[in-house]
Amino acid sequence: MAVKPQLGLIGLGTMGAALALNIAEKGFPIAVWNRTASVTRRFHSAAGALAERIVPAETLADLVAAMAAPRAIILMVPAGEAVDAQLSALAPLLGPQDLVIDAGNANFHDTDRRAAAGWPFRFMGIGVSGGEAGARHGPAIMAGGKPEDWARMAPVLRAIAARAEDGTPCADHMGEGGAGHFVKMVHNGIEYADMQMIAEVYGIMRDGLAMAAPEIAPVFARWNEGVLRSYLVEISAAVAAARDPVTGGPMLDMIVDAAGQKGTGRWTAIEAQHLGAPIPVIEAAVMARNVSARRAERAAGEALYGPAPEPAVVPLEDLEQALIAGKILCYAQGFAMMRAAAESFGWALDMPAIARVWRAGCIIRSAMLNDMAEALAEDPGRNLILAPFFANTLRRGLPALRRVVAAGALHGLGLPALSAGLAWFDMMRTARGTADMIQAQRDYFGLHGFQRRDGLDRPHGPWAEG
Amino acid sequence: MAVKPQLGLIGLGTMGAALALNIAEKGFPIAVWNRTASVTRRFHSAAGALAERIVPAETLADLVAAMAAPRAIILMVPAGEAVDAQLSALAPLLGPQDLVIDAGNANFHDTDRRAAAGWPFRFMGIGVSGGEAGARHGPAIMAGGKPEDWARMAPVLRAIAARAEDGTPCADHMGEGGAGHFVKMVHNGIEYADMQMIAEVYGIMRDGLAMAAPEIAPVFARWNEGVLRSYLVEISAAVAAARDPVTGGPMLDMIVDAAGQKGTGRWTAIEAQHLGAPIPVIEAAVMARNVSARRAERAAGEALYGPAPEPAVVPLEDLEQALIAGKILCYAQGFAMMRAAAESFGWALDMPAIARVWRAGCIIRSAMLNDMAEALAEDPGRNLILAPFFANTLRRGLPALRRVVAAGALHGLGLPALSAGLAWFDMMRTARGTADMIQAQRDYFGLHGFQRRDGLDRPHGPWAEG
Repeated sequence: MAVKPQLGLIGLGTMGAALALNIAEKGFPIAVWNRTASVTRRFHSAAGALAERIVPAETLADLVAAMAAPRAIILMVPAGEAVDAQLSALAPLLGPQDLVIDAGNANFHDTDRRAAAGWPFRFMGIGVSGGEAGARHGPAIMAGGKPEDWARMAPVLRAIAARAEDGTPCADHMGEGGAGHFVKMVHNGIEYADMQMIAEVYGIMRDGLAMAAPEIAPVFARWNEGVLRSYLVEISAAVAAARDPVTGGPMLDMIVDAAGQKGTGRWTAIEAQHLGAPIPVIEAAVMARNVSARRAERAAGEALYGPAPEPAVVPLEDLEQALIAGKILCYAQGFAMMRAAAESFGWALDMPAIARVWRAGCIIRSAMLNDMAEALAEDPGRNLILAPFFANTLRRGLPALRRVVAAGALHGLGLPALSAGLAWFDMMRTARGTADMIQAQRDYFGLHGFQRRDGLDRPHGPWAEG
Repeated sequence: MAVKPQLGLIGLGTMGAALALNIAEKGFPIAVWNRTASVTRRFHSAAGALAERIVPAETLADLVAAMAAPRAIILMVPAGEAVDAQLSALAPLLGPQDLVIDAGNANFHDTDRRAAAGWPFRFMGIGVSGGEAGARHGPAIMAGGKPEDWARMAPVLRAIAARAEDGTPCADHMGEGGAGHFVKMVHNGIEYADMQMIAEVYGIMRDGLAMAAPEIAPVFARWNEGVLRSYLVEISAAVAAARDPVTGGPMLDMIVDAAGQKGTGRWTAIEAQHLGAPIPVIEAAVMARNVSARRAERAAGEALYGPAPEPAVVPLEDLEQALIAGKILCYAQGFAMMRAAAESFGWALDMPAIARVWRAGCIIRSAMLNDMAEALAEDPGRNLILAPFFANTLRRGLPALRRVVAAGALHGLGLPALSAGLAWFDMMRTARGTADMIQAQRDYFGLHGFQRRDGLDRPHGPWAEG
């Protein structure tokens, strides 16, 4: 290779290897290093035609020496202490114009801390979504950091990113510090919620309508041709259609119903609490995963209370409309949470840009994000349920969502996410809610005081006198 | 006064003053000090006959000098930095047998930290519930700290505590470190949930059944004579009956429906997320308070979507049964969260003792806590919904809860807490849930793997091949 690469990558695990190949494929020379030298060598020798753009390094010092200044080194190591250790190891080797990019799954608080830590090099944290396939062929990239560092990296990040149907690369600058990892975290929270709502309508088909998995698959496939067109609905059709290679029966029926989590849904719920931003659909999805793991208690519950009272009769059209409505409500909550974060953390989060970045490459990519980007471009500060386009869609879907939630309640089919979305919506469309009772109680037992509708400054009820 | 008191109290605000009078009234001499000396003097001169058991101190050093060793000094200062500042100020004045008791609303993490901080004196943190009236005449006391410090303070704390109907003082030792403040925090989370569920059935009466506040009051009063007998239902009747002194109309109708919060509900939700313990009813209650504060958005929502579709017809008996069922589900979640905390933090939390402490003095005191204490004594590790007594009560109430949640969904009355409780219950009584779909999706897009029902070690679906 004639010229030394300015790009480097540390950590050749699944994600790092895929990202390095993606970068090389887009024409950028890149130096790579892994803690275990044999991993680096094996990666390089398996890179085929791309190997000529890839410089393998045996040591961290070799990596830095193999690169031309100013360097930009992408970290793809496990989130947490490994990142701090790697930054410390790089400190004596890099100069003030070199840039280190944490592309792992960092908690945004850590990214904020690292961005403010005064390293002898520049630092930015970017959220990368799309798993191994995304990293290899085009992820969604949510970049945090200083605008000048984003400007420097944008040609590379845009080149390797997924492209929306209109050709726009799904890589953009979210804001300073931890903003990129924050948006990635909310993405994952929404991913939990999308998956949970799909699982809920699947449950109605399976347990309420007694449909077998092979009958459920074409329903998801049909939905995937309409408003619900999305990666998650597409793969729901695929997994419902899949056969277990061992038994020949439906694969779904052989999978234990206990969902794991890597914690980002939980992080989203915790941050939303800190921000005072309600995201009940995501909270319900996290709750559902936690409950799914309690298999023994659930079996004891079924033994005690019996199975669902009776099968529910719900038209498939209602399920499709309920899922559309639930999805809009969930995203409305997610974007509202990001607005609260922007205000709280001083980030200039660009709401339509976030929707555009999510249109391809990431797990929650969907047709609806096009419409969300447009609605948010009209008025980024407005709740999505108040945008005319989505108000019209919701008006169509809400009667079905009401019937579905009611049927779930009456027939014993747990629909935590769909019912949480509906209850939130009904509170958000009620000018006079029921918190007057709560304020009265709080004043009664603790003299907390309340506001009066007539504006008079008499903050206590008659119970406070005497 | 002949003998120097061994008890002292710092901070003569509303709660501290009430607690000092309570202690003196029960026969214990006590030295008191407030940062502003005039407050101390005024407190003492207003103490009437109790003044002779109260020693006012002008300075912190005076307070310590006025007491006999070993001293026990109760802190009633604002939670947070004020506590740390007070502990630092006491450090040079106290000896290793002196004991400082933080009786304020500390976050249990702070109490854990302070208990481990190596002060030159002994330290314990206790949760005190019941507001000013409780502090004055009998609060519920949830003590954390070392068993020997609890033993030393128990005679005082039991004497000043509320008494259950069977005469038992509502003061007990919860565990070491922050255990007392943790249980107090969960108490407050449950308080949010109890209040929210009451507000939801109030909303059905008001908006679904078009009942005026004076018609609603006797319904709560009647419920307070049955299974729902509790302080919060009692005061719901009182506030619904109250007249606005200005207009003469119902007080409730004049109160702005935006509920404040002091954060303990939010803390509970955050800690539950950290523990992986689902408390969806409390989460819904925190959500509802957050949404209540968004008055402008709610008004815009009503303008766009119109008021509730149509009045709901729900029998009052259904509302009572729904509230009973919702309450059981909420407490089942709260006790399960405390079991998770006990395991995670190494506390020997005594579940029936917690239920017994909550029977009087605190905001959530209720008749049902007697039954909970009994059910938990039978098997402290069992989820309350699996206890025979509550299974029977739930079987009676669930059909009503189902009808109420369905009516709310169909008629546009937001019931976030009641519907979250029901959805959780229906998941907890379903041996085969719908997380097989989620596990299939996770394996499809990220090769996360799953367990098979037949136990074979083949953690991936056919989509993973090729």
